[in-house]
Order: sequence, then C-alpha cells, then structure tokens
Amino acid sequence: MKLVALAGGIGASKLLLGLCQVIDPADLTIVANTGDDIELHGLRISPDLDTITYTLAGAVEERQGWGLAGETFHALQALGRYGREIWFNLGDRDLATHLHRTELLCRGWTLAEVADEIRRAWGVAARILPATNDRVESRVITDAGTLHFQEYLVRDRAQAAVRGIVLAGIKHARPAPGVLEAIARADGVVVCPSNPIISIGPILGVRHVRETLRETQAPAVAVSPVVAGASLKGPTDKMLVGLGHEVSALAVARLYADFLDGFILDREDVSQVPAVEALGLRAWTAQTVMQTFEEKVELAKVVVAALEELRG
Amino acid sequence: MKLVALAGGIGASKLLLGLCQVIDPADLTIVANTGDDIELHGLRISPDLDTITYTLAGAVEERQGWGLAGETFHALQALGRYGREIWFNLGDRDLATHLHRTELLCRGWTLAEVADEIRRAWGVAARILPATNDRVESRVITDAGTLHFQEYLVRDRAQAAVRGIVLAGIKHARPAPGVLEAIARADGVVVCPSNPIISIGPILGVRHVRETLRETQAPAVAVSPVVAGASLKGPTDKMLVGLGHEVSALAVARLYADFLDGFILDREDVSQVPAVEALGLRAWTAQTVMQTFEEKVELAKVVVAALEELRG
Repeated sequence: MKLVALAGGIGASKLLLGLCQVIDPADLTIVANTGDDIELHGLRISPDLDTITYTLAGAVEERQGWGLAGETFHALQALGRYGREIWFNLGDRDLATHLHRTELLCRGWTLAEVADEIRRAWGVAARILPATNDRVESRVITDAGTLHFQEYLVRDRAQAAVRGIVLAGIKHARPAPGVLEAIARADGVVVCPSNPIISIGPILGVRHVRETLRETQAPAVAVSPVVAGASLKGPTDKMLVGLGHEVSALAVARLYADFLDGFILDREDVSQVPAVEALGLRAWTAQTVMQTFEEKVELAKVVVAALEELRG
Repeated sequence: MKLVALAGGIGASKLLLGLCQVIDPADLTIVANTGDDIELHGLRISPDLDTITYTLAGAVEERQGWGLAGETFHALQALGRYGREIWFNLGDRDLATHLHRTELLCRGWTLAEVADEIRRAWGVAARILPATNDRVESRVITDAGTLHFQEYLVRDRAQAAVRGIVLAGIKHARPAPGVLEAIARADGVVVCPSNPIISIGPILGVRHVRETLRETQAPAVAVSPVVAGASLKGPTDKMLVGLGHEVSALAVARLYADFLDGFILDREDVSQVPAVEALGLRAWTAQTVMQTFEEKVELAKVVVAALEELRG
C-alpha cells in the first residue's frame, strides 16, 4: 500500500514512526510543512523536515520530540556572546544539518533535493518531501504585532492571543516536484495529527494540492490532533479559538471535510462521531495519544486498517 | 608608546599577549594576516584573526595555541555524516564566531568591522585589524598541484614539497581602513615571529603597506621565527627551502631588510649577528622561544626596549 502522509512536526513524526513499522517505509511519501521554516544566524532551518528525519532515523530526543538525543548547545551559548538572539534552540549536532542545508541551497539545490539528501544520510527509507520549494512563512497576528510563527511559539511561548494567521508566499507557492504525483498515485492519504492551521494549512495551500487531494481516487483519512477539547502538543487549541473555531476533533474534521473520506478521533471524543459522520465522513475511534513506541504502532495500524476498509 | 604589530597566528599571538602586559593594550594596533582565510561549509573562517582574539582574551587552548579552551567538536563530527570534509578543526563554540562573521559579511559589513566587533565582544582592548578587507588567498604550489594553504598545512600536514607560493588577489588588495594610518602614526613597528612568506607576506603585499613601512619615521624591528635553523611552529622552514632561501634567522632578516631597523634573534643564533648587522640592521639576541607566560612578557620587554633604543 503506497501511502502519502501530510505532516507537521512532533505529533506527525510519532505516527510516521508507527507507520514505518506497519508498511514498507519505501512505500511512504511524507509531504512536510515548511511554513515554520526560519532563517537564523544566516542558516536555513526547516524544523518539521528535521524533526521527521531525526525521528524516523531513531535519533530524536524522545522526551521533547525534537532535536537530537544527547545534544549539546555550546555553539548557541557562544552566539550569545555576540549579542545574538538565542531563543531558538539549535544543538551543536543539529547545526551540522543547517550548515549543510544552507550551503547546498546557496549552491542552487532545491529544498526538496536537500531534504532527500539529508534523509538518505540518516538512512531513512521513507521519502521526505517539502510541500514546496518556494518560501512560505507562517505569521501570527497578535495584539502585539505580527510575529514569525517561531517567534510566537518558541520565543514568546504562545502567550499572545491569536487574531489571525498569514501564510506569506502561499499564493505563489508551487508544489515541490513529486508532491502532486505522489498524491495522485497513492493507495491512501493520511493527514497526521498536526496543527490544521499552521502545519497542515501551509501544505494544503500550495497550488493544486487541495484539488489533487479532492480528485484522487485514493481514500484519505485524518487523525485528530485535538483530544477532549485540547491539543496534545503546541498551540493548536489557542489558534483554533483565535480564528473563531471551536476546539474539538469535529472542528478539525470540518477543516478537511472537502477532501477527506474518514476521520480518526480519540476514544474520549466518541460523542462527536455522529457529527463527524454527518459531514459525510467515516469515523473511527482509537487511542490517539502516542507516548510509547507500541502506541505509535497501534495507531498506525488503525490508520492503515481504516484506509483498507475505505478502499473496500 | 603606540605600537603596530604585523602578525600571523600562533607565534605572533604569544608575543602579542606579552606586549599587552608591557604597554597599554589600547596603544597596540595589530595588523593581521588574512591570506590563510578559508571558506568551509559556507562559513568565512579567519584563523589568524581568531587566534589573536582568543589568545588576547585569555580564551585560547594554550597547549595547541589555536581554538578555544575546553572546546567540543560535535557539529564537525556531525558534518561528517553528510560526507563533508572535516579535516579543518572547527569547534562548537568557535563555530559561533564563524556564523557571526559570515552573517555580518553577508549583511555588508567589512571584515575589518567584523574583526573589531568580535574582539570587543571578547573584551580585547588592543585593536585588531585585518591587513585588507579584500580577499587574498595563499596557495601552495606542490608537485601534486596547487593547494589552499590550509589544505597544504592542515589537511595534508605539510607533507608536499613546496615549489612556490601564490598570494591570489594580492595585487588588487587595498589596505583596510586604518592600516596605513596606524603605521604612519606609530612610535614603533614590530614584525611578530610568524612565517615571513605565508603570514607576513600577505600583509606586506597589500598595496602601500611596504612603502609606508619604509617611509615611516618610527623604528621597526622583527623577531625571528627561525631558531637554530628550524621554525618553532608550522612549515616556515619547509617553505623557505622550497622558495630557495636558507633556513636561518638571517634569511628572514634579509626578507624584511628594506623596511627594518632592528632584528631580534634567538641567543642560539648569536653567530648570525654580524651578518644581520651587515644588512644595516641593529641586532639583539634574546630567548625567542615562548612557552610560559613569563617568557612571552620577557620577549615583549626586549622588543619594546629595542624600539626605545632605536628611537634614541
């Protein structure tokens, strides 16, 4: 079964790690968000691409879900001496990835070519594609001004009320080579449990991606990132509220209903199943909180079984 | 006494550290070699500028004479995963300097402005100027081809026989702002015990530097980097041989004789004093090997005393 997964960072990576145990990783194409990418200290940083790569390579710092296990932060501390902002945690080993990426981009490589080079260097068999090679930047409108998403999330710890989201550059962003083809040829599509606004939104907004998802014969399911009225990780709940949505699995299902065939909610949200089905979607409940390796594999099995059921 | 010092890296830094104890560091202007600069992993690296800064800040790894004390090399090791050449040792904390420099240069700062920013961040009172803001690259011609000096020295460990030296870009290199002025206004000039070909050569070759040294009223002395027919550090001896010079303090004195007033040889080379004097130079002997802090201060005192004697 050839799968395409739309993915943000930490939550997505957990499910992707499970999926790589359930299907042949070589049959998995991951389309990753690049809206959180940021340039710091002259380096091009792609947090979601790297979190996915490090997780699938078994190298991620598991407790926090990002960065490399056993990492040190000596360079970052030393940057502080030069008066530089050091709120974005860049580990010493992780810096090598950003140095390598930045130099290849300067030489004219595309982000997709770099992402492929990096995942191969880590021995990751799944294909990891950025949604687009063009620059898309997620900005958060707050009362204090418009912030880069990383400034809002990491520097300011998501404290400002969200008034709006701007995906700068999205209108002109073209899909990276292979993205539309992978979706069109897939046997199934899964939207990972990521922030629908800031992680999946910048993928869906890339030209022709949403239409291709609507048109493909392959079934598409999403796993809810919202459980019992709160996001497991990150500011999904605050963003949904700020943009006028309710904070529920159902609200997420509505955002994807035009191209989805099925939706996987947490068991705690079983009461929302009828409302999800009323959107025209098949619904499954499962344990969507993935703490252990086994829980990741179990949820991946539910995803694959749901797609197989939808294929009939 | 306002001093100007022409300096390479490790040997020069030892004398400079001594000089900062003997005169007011604010009266010292260091004109540093940039011919060894190299771009690696997209970073602009200025080994001599950094060695001088780290040494005067008391932060250098003393045993080896370059890099930062207590340094780690995690980023460099991680760069190896990506198939990158990692023969040039870049420590994690040291990387912060290169990242900072590279980004400032990309923003349009000159190398001199960056060097000044960095030495101030380290609390170094002496002024540290690159000889030029223009790119000069020292290349070594060997039987195996032409190598960047760092490839010859660090990667290949100075194993190839030297057939010639090319200072690429030197003809068009203009002195950094302040270099000629500092020499013209100095009360004394000292040429540090550095490689005359590859460290001092790229300073003297910058437009108008040598003429200004010849014309200035201030006395100029050099400290020999060659002791008893060998260089204390680095490939000075191999380079002198390769370029047809003898390996002796006298040979170094000859290279500078047109602008020098005095020359300081090691006590071991006292037999060369008459020949140095025959070049029209005053000669002093001293212990030029600087292992301890005290030895650095002692040699600095000899330099200052020699300049005072020459001023009369």
